[in-house]
Amino acid sequence: MPSTDLTFLNHDEHRAWLRDQSKLPLGFNVGTTTFDFTPQEALKSATMTLTLITLDEPTADFGAVFTQNAFPGAPVIIGRERLAAPSLGALVINNKISNVCAPDGVETSEKICAETAELLGFKSNQIFPSSTGIIGWRLPADAMITALPPARTALQSESILPAAEGIVTTDLYPKVRSVSIGGGRIVGIAKGAGMVEPNLATMLVYLLTDIEVPREVLRTELIRAVNKSFNRISIDSDTSTSDTVAAVSSGRVKDVALSEFTQGLEQVCQDLAEDVVRNGEGVRHVMRVAVRGAPDIRFATELGRAVVNAPLFKCAIAGNDPNVGRLVQAIGRYVGNSAQLVDVSSMSLSIGGIEIFGGGVFKLDPQKEVALQAHLQAAQLYESQPTESGVFLPPIDYPAHERCVEIDIQLGTGTAAATVLGGDLTHEYVTENADYRS
Amino acid sequence: MPSTDLTFLNHDEHRAWLRDQSKLPLGFNVGTTTFDFTPQEALKSATMTLTLITLDEPTADFGAVFTQNAFPGAPVIIGRERLAAPSLGALVINNKISNVCAPDGVETSEKICAETAELLGFKSNQIFPSSTGIIGWRLPADAMITALPPARTALQSESILPAAEGIVTTDLYPKVRSVSIGGGRIVGIAKGAGMVEPNLATMLVYLLTDIEVPREVLRTELIRAVNKSFNRISIDSDTSTSDTVAAVSSGRVKDVALSEFTQGLEQVCQDLAEDVVRNGEGVRHVMRVAVRGAPDIRFATELGRAVVNAPLFKCAIAGNDPNVGRLVQAIGRYVGNSAQLVDVSSMSLSIGGIEIFGGGVFKLDPQKEVALQAHLQAAQLYESQPTESGVFLPPIDYPAHERCVEIDIQLGTGTAAATVLGGDLTHEYVTENADYRS
Repeated sequence: MPSTDLTFLNHDEHRAWLRDQSKLPLGFNVGTTTFDFTPQEALKSATMTLTLITLDEPTADFGAVFTQNAFPGAPVIIGRERLAAPSLGALVINNKISNVCAPDGVETSEKICAETAELLGFKSNQIFPSSTGIIGWRLPADAMITALPPARTALQSESILPAAEGIVTTDLYPKVRSVSIGGGRIVGIAKGAGMVEPNLATMLVYLLTDIEVPREVLRTELIRAVNKSFNRISIDSDTSTSDTVAAVSSGRVKDVALSEFTQGLEQVCQDLAEDVVRNGEGVRHVMRVAVRGAPDIRFATELGRAVVNAPLFKCAIAGNDPNVGRLVQAIGRYVGNSAQLVDVSSMSLSIGGIEIFGGGVFKLDPQKEVALQAHLQAAQLYESQPTESGVFLPPIDYPAHERCVEIDIQLGTGTAAATVLGGDLTHEYVTENADYRS
Repeated sequence: MPSTDLTFLNHDEHRAWLRDQSKLPLGFNVGTTTFDFTPQEALKSATMTLTLITLDEPTADFGAVFTQNAFPGAPVIIGRERLAAPSLGALVINNKISNVCAPDGVETSEKICAETAELLGFKSNQIFPSSTGIIGWRLPADAMITALPPARTALQSESILPAAEGIVTTDLYPKVRSVSIGGGRIVGIAKGAGMVEPNLATMLVYLLTDIEVPREVLRTELIRAVNKSFNRISIDSDTSTSDTVAAVSSGRVKDVALSEFTQGLEQVCQDLAEDVVRNGEGVRHVMRVAVRGAPDIRFATELGRAVVNAPLFKCAIAGNDPNVGRLVQAIGRYVGNSAQLVDVSSMSLSIGGIEIFGGGVFKLDPQKEVALQAHLQAAQLYESQPTESGVFLPPIDYPAHERCVEIDIQLGTGTAAATVLGGDLTHEYVTENADYRS
């Protein structure tokens, strides 16, 4: 659950809150530049933003986790190598093209790292690259190299907001979350709205801190925080070829208790993960599925995922239709296919705190139906407003509130629990994804 | 692939073809009746059709396979018991309510079986019940019992078409397939348009034959045919709580070679399975994914399923957008999560016979893009036509053709192969499922 309550903030208030969140930790600089180019595989031009995140001094204290997709993008292949490098000086990030399985993809990405290093006075292996966008196309290397000097000129040490805005593709708004601890800060930004599922997705996340955390500790805590946040969300069950969560410490603020850092990192990751779902492609309802009484944590997590990924249930939620049969169907499918024995007569289910199933049978009546509908209505982020030609576009603004559809599954079998977040399946999702490249 | 080619048939020709397919095998009768009632859980009335399929004489030669969902409907619970009964006299099927986890569901279904048996002069355990429709509601037992005599009055031995039309819910048209072999026939009907995935789905299939096949042989051949047909389709990855495929022989035609029967049964099942996908909720493109060179058949089948269930790729297909990156993403996700080692550099991919990936890299150019788009356009079943308020409804008519989006995945790793069918993800699907109950 987010550490803030943004309900009822209007656009200007939200913007002010975002600026406040965005204050960079000590030792970091951010600069971006935007330019047009014509992809070699396409018939018309495209626009790319190049984002630089630089450190005043290279640091040994950095880490990253990556997609498990069998076709990792070139930047992921390079990023994995960078984990062995002694230090990191800068990150160079582009949107629009993800550089996945493109001819000479690794060479092109390394070339851009080399040019970035040259410009900033670092070594090539101190540059960490990321790319997000269309899969299969080649990066416009020359145009990107030309864009590096203006991006360097734009560097400033006040705000991470330009980076949060620079790395997006189909996101509706920038996602920034931060905590301040013992004189230091952890600031995180996230990009990702589609292809988002556990094991990371077309999701880029950068976590910057000035709190001193040794390299190995940072990496351990990063994995722990990711498992409890980004690995428990799913928008459309797809897993991107480019997912990356990177954490970097400039080490400028000493003597902060590790437990405080860990708690702060987890909070920033969970807040960003919820932001990613809430801004998921076409998401009009965020579902929070709390599974309890499970035989083990894996079962709890996978069952939560099965619910937030069930297309018919997602559609029902989109229509503010408390179709509890589809929820039971989704649970039954996962349980039926699992090797675990779960006695459905010991299970109870509720939506919005209203019990709908227990003792092996549904507990429904017309009054509950009305109450369930009201819960779904209250959790809706915006009303669908198609154009005359049937195009569904979400309002481009910050979310109106942070309420969720609250689904509780008590299995009554064991003691493990997990909470998984996901979105509904809407016309806005189809509009976005049936016509994304055209 | 269907044994017939229905491309370019107009409505009247298709209807005539359907009537011809529908000729009942010897020894069977079909009758239906339709009535209105008010469900106990709802605020407005609903319409149900009750379908009777009866045998002139009870037969020992019948079998059925059922859903693997952990919440089987009451008729599935009873149907499993019926497999142990010495003989079968009739099937009683209703649409609108599926009788799943409803209070006293099994008792209600057994009561309807008892009344049906009384009316037809059979025993209760000779009646096989099926229900499909909304999960969680209670069957209107009294109204159904009142409807039994008119359904019996309607019994005739000419055509299965009234049953094919009587068992549907959101299907756009009845699905009937048949073969004639050595003086006998196998006639199958199917119901199912949503919640359709491997391991069966809200799918009811009845296969009637007058060819004599011993009970145990019939059951073995049924499982084999289902595994090669209905278990290789997926519309939305959901698994219904009510799926049933039943096969019944009246035994009136003797001395047909088993190999001919087996081949015919498999053909009818495969034809019906493709019909179910083509008429899937909101399906505008049928995808046929042929996986070859896989390490084993399970890997081949699951990979095919992963492709036809990947939401982003399904949306791209809906938009006639040859977004090959999303295909690679879907394959990579499955391979990345599997324990099998697959070398992606030995893989090749084609869509509509056009190679798009090989040797570890994409093989794309603007000309191929045009050709790929043309392939998708040609496979489209109909154009999207939203109303002014953004409601997308498919034309209610037989499909215009039986072309598929042909996706070939050669893994280059082993020798196993499997073909999986699925549909795209469209506005019509969301319209159907976000507002189904209301």
